[in-house]
Amino acid sequence: MTEKKDGFVKEITPKSEDFSQWYVDVCRKADLMDYAPVKGCMVIKPYGYSLWENIKEGLDRRIKATGHVNAYFPLFIPESYLQKEAEHVEGFAPEVAWVTHGGAEELHERLAVRPTSETIICAMYSRWIQSWRDLPVLINQWANVVRWEKATRPFLRTTEFLWQEGHTAHRTAEEAEEETLRMLEVYRDFVETDLSIPVVVGRKTEGEKFAGAVHTYTIEALMSDGRALQAATSHNLGQHFAKVFDITFLDQDDQLKHVWQTSWGMTTRIIGALIMVHGDDRGLVLPPKVAPIQVVIVPIAPQKERERVLAEARALQRELEEHLRTHLDDRDEYTPGWKFNEWEMRGVPLRIEIGPRDIERGQVVLVRRDGGAKTPVSRSGLVDVVKGFLDDIQKSRWQKAKQFMEENTRTAGSVDELKAIMEDKRGFVLGGWCGEGSCEDAVKEETGATIRCIPLAEPGWKGEKCICCGGHASHTVYFARAY
Amino acid sequence: MTEKKDGFVKEITPKSEDFSQWYVDVCRKADLMDYAPVKGCMVIKPYGYSLWENIKEGLDRRIKATGHVNAYFPLFIPESYLQKEAEHVEGFAPEVAWVTHGGAEELHERLAVRPTSETIICAMYSRWIQSWRDLPVLINQWANVVRWEKATRPFLRTTEFLWQEGHTAHRTAEEAEEETLRMLEVYRDFVETDLSIPVVVGRKTEGEKFAGAVHTYTIEALMSDGRALQAATSHNLGQHFAKVFDITFLDQDDQLKHVWQTSWGMTTRIIGALIMVHGDDRGLVLPPKVAPIQVVIVPIAPQKERERVLAEARALQRELEEHLRTHLDDRDEYTPGWKFNEWEMRGVPLRIEIGPRDIERGQVVLVRRDGGAKTPVSRSGLVDVVKGFLDDIQKSRWQKAKQFMEENTRTAGSVDELKAIMEDKRGFVLGGWCGEGSCEDAVKEETGATIRCIPLAEPGWKGEKCICCGGHASHTVYFARAY
Repeated sequence: MTEKKDGFVKEITPKSEDFSQWYVDVCRKADLMDYAPVKGCMVIKPYGYSLWENIKEGLDRRIKATGHVNAYFPLFIPESYLQKEAEHVEGFAPEVAWVTHGGAEELHERLAVRPTSETIICAMYSRWIQSWRDLPVLINQWANVVRWEKATRPFLRTTEFLWQEGHTAHRTAEEAEEETLRMLEVYRDFVETDLSIPVVVGRKTEGEKFAGAVHTYTIEALMSDGRALQAATSHNLGQHFAKVFDITFLDQDDQLKHVWQTSWGMTTRIIGALIMVHGDDRGLVLPPKVAPIQVVIVPIAPQKERERVLAEARALQRELEEHLRTHLDDRDEYTPGWKFNEWEMRGVPLRIEIGPRDIERGQVVLVRRDGGAKTPVSRSGLVDVVKGFLDDIQKSRWQKAKQFMEENTRTAGSVDELKAIMEDKRGFVLGGWCGEGSCEDAVKEETGATIRCIPLAEPGWKGEKCICCGGHASHTVYFARAY
Repeated sequence: MTEKKDGFVKEITPKSEDFSQWYVDVCRKADLMDYAPVKGCMVIKPYGYSLWENIKEGLDRRIKATGHVNAYFPLFIPESYLQKEAEHVEGFAPEVAWVTHGGAEELHERLAVRPTSETIICAMYSRWIQSWRDLPVLINQWANVVRWEKATRPFLRTTEFLWQEGHTAHRTAEEAEEETLRMLEVYRDFVETDLSIPVVVGRKTEGEKFAGAVHTYTIEALMSDGRALQAATSHNLGQHFAKVFDITFLDQDDQLKHVWQTSWGMTTRIIGALIMVHGDDRGLVLPPKVAPIQVVIVPIAPQKERERVLAEARALQRELEEHLRTHLDDRDEYTPGWKFNEWEMRGVPLRIEIGPRDIERGQVVLVRRDGGAKTPVSRSGLVDVVKGFLDDIQKSRWQKAKQFMEENTRTAGSVDELKAIMEDKRGFVLGGWCGEGSCEDAVKEETGATIRCIPLAEPGWKGEKCICCGGHASHTVYFARAY
């Protein structure tokens, strides 16, 4: 499963030279994915999938803790269902993969391979929901979805991707809005705590919202090349879908009413964000909470002492693996230096080196992936020390990314200022906006930057005038070029 | 999410009256699934999905413990890939759903929605495997697959279903055969231990093996209507796929060789087996190890004592839920009797009743789903007592199913005898077989029974002559009508 031995590390293009190529190199060389023979599709290799399993675990736990349950809805959606909600079909139809034949038989109606599941789920909810007692319905689904994309990049944009999609139905507009914001907060907490990625929390403009939503909330992260990435979204669907799918309930006042709905999702795209926020020229850097391997043990021994050192390394592994995701690299055919490079490239947060002299001294050497500091520590009580190191790494990833985001958040009073920033350092730019779509479009045309969100919290600076038309700024918004 | 209050239980058709209708009633009324608006597709509702999550967890743990890792391969397979292995395409092409359009654009080559992933995975393995050092490759995938079926039934046969599929590559034929049998044993252990379903372990005949395999091993379970169900299969693929996909490696002797492969899978179909092995006229009966709710607490109190009893029930819940999947049914609008029926229908293994008199006596009442025995037990030290009850229920499910299988395993010396059994009691029938496909086909035609497997272990009885042609019996095999 390993790539060729030679030229492993040197094949990662430096970030500063070509960020896009660096990104793809890291994806490939860290063994996260491979290209598939189907256009725009990729294989998530075991190391990348293990990362996704850890992400799923952390997010699924939070989704369940907030009262949601998982279910599974069909992959195929009849074309007529997709067409019921006008904005929704307009948004998604151009990127649908269509099934037209089952075996040798041509279908009466084409089936969409789900690009998202609102329509099929609403069709079921209209059967399941009858009374106010049936509400709220709080269902989540882990699934694959397909969107026929022209330009694709590993994790960031692929024809098929994995995600979770939550779909809820409520008695009142207020409850639906609360749910929309609750799940946005779940995403923020997960991304900031487990992935050490700081985000800006806000609402999308009319032009950028989900096709069919009343409004869309988003968490936006800043990649280390200064471009923004939408990390997760939460939509208040109002009664748009409830009305076209006839999802009604008999309320306590004996009135038949339409439910209020939300939907929210996070995808394998978040792995792209992890790579681009934390990675460096030597490859991947993973926050310990989601790293497939948290600690790698590399024994260092001359041939004649090999067995003695290996025995000690194995004892170490047994001790650690009860508490941490631990890997012992006991391969005979590679040098320690080669192994150091490989595990650094794969982003393992902490390496433990152990050699004959360490054994004599009753110590091991801990080497951090971030910074590379080497610390000899006592062999006794190691588990707690290692846990402490991992906590510290998790926090320092966060601090570093937070500092980067802060240093790369600027302000602009005009389109020219925004344009100058976008052509130089990029990053987030706060600016005033009048609220008109025409100004939003003109800024995008001129600078390549879009409005990432209207922040929910006071951003600490206020744009008085629209950077485009100079009119009164009804909002201070975050602009950025985005993935 | 609940069905209408009236006529909940009485709508389950008795097993003895119409087994098929009983099965569908249990699926629907226990709230495991619902029919989807796409032909042959179903929705796995939260209760059913939670069951699947527990099944996944138990099986995934065993798959990983035997050295396998998970990955994810694309949903779409180019038509030309599917066609490379002649037997494979012949077996699967008639039931493939074909994607012909991406957005508005017609594709150059049709894409199969994966019916199974051997071909796409082999295409990747041919790139990943170069040296003997890369072997074995031990990868598993949890995914959805699609097979365009004519006649469908919930869980047992649906157009789309969920499964895991393992795909491995090895250096030698012996290692591949070992792996095939190792995974068969993993399935047997999981199904017998966690699902309390006894199985017969054996090899499929040439006529019944997987399309493209050298041979297929199977575990076969007996449903309570006397029909068999294939619970999981493990295939030794030999070098069939390696040769057409050119999966080669440089061996230690410097020779370029083709790898030896296996694949193995278990699907959501196993939920159908759970229902049909353990269910009764009151609905579902779930083995504790996989039950979404292991213990349900039902408070029983007159209105004026409601709060006091509820407070105690909540304390009980907090105590139990640290150790067990516990649900407190504190709904005000239903009577205790109604709740008893509902949770029995849903198969919850153990119910705890608590009322004012129980509180005074420092006790609760445990009621088993299987048998319905009521046992007052002391409130103190309850967790261990409940765990003991659940262990006992798990074991007694197993014993009951095992006894049923033994009592319904008969022998036949002729096709007429087999036919008589099939028209009366069904079950497994041991009989001699000469090894010829023509006799296998003739028996099927005559009796509706197929050869389920050639058992790996001595079945304790030997058929001397082929029940069909009367020639020398090279094997003693299990016959049954099957799902």
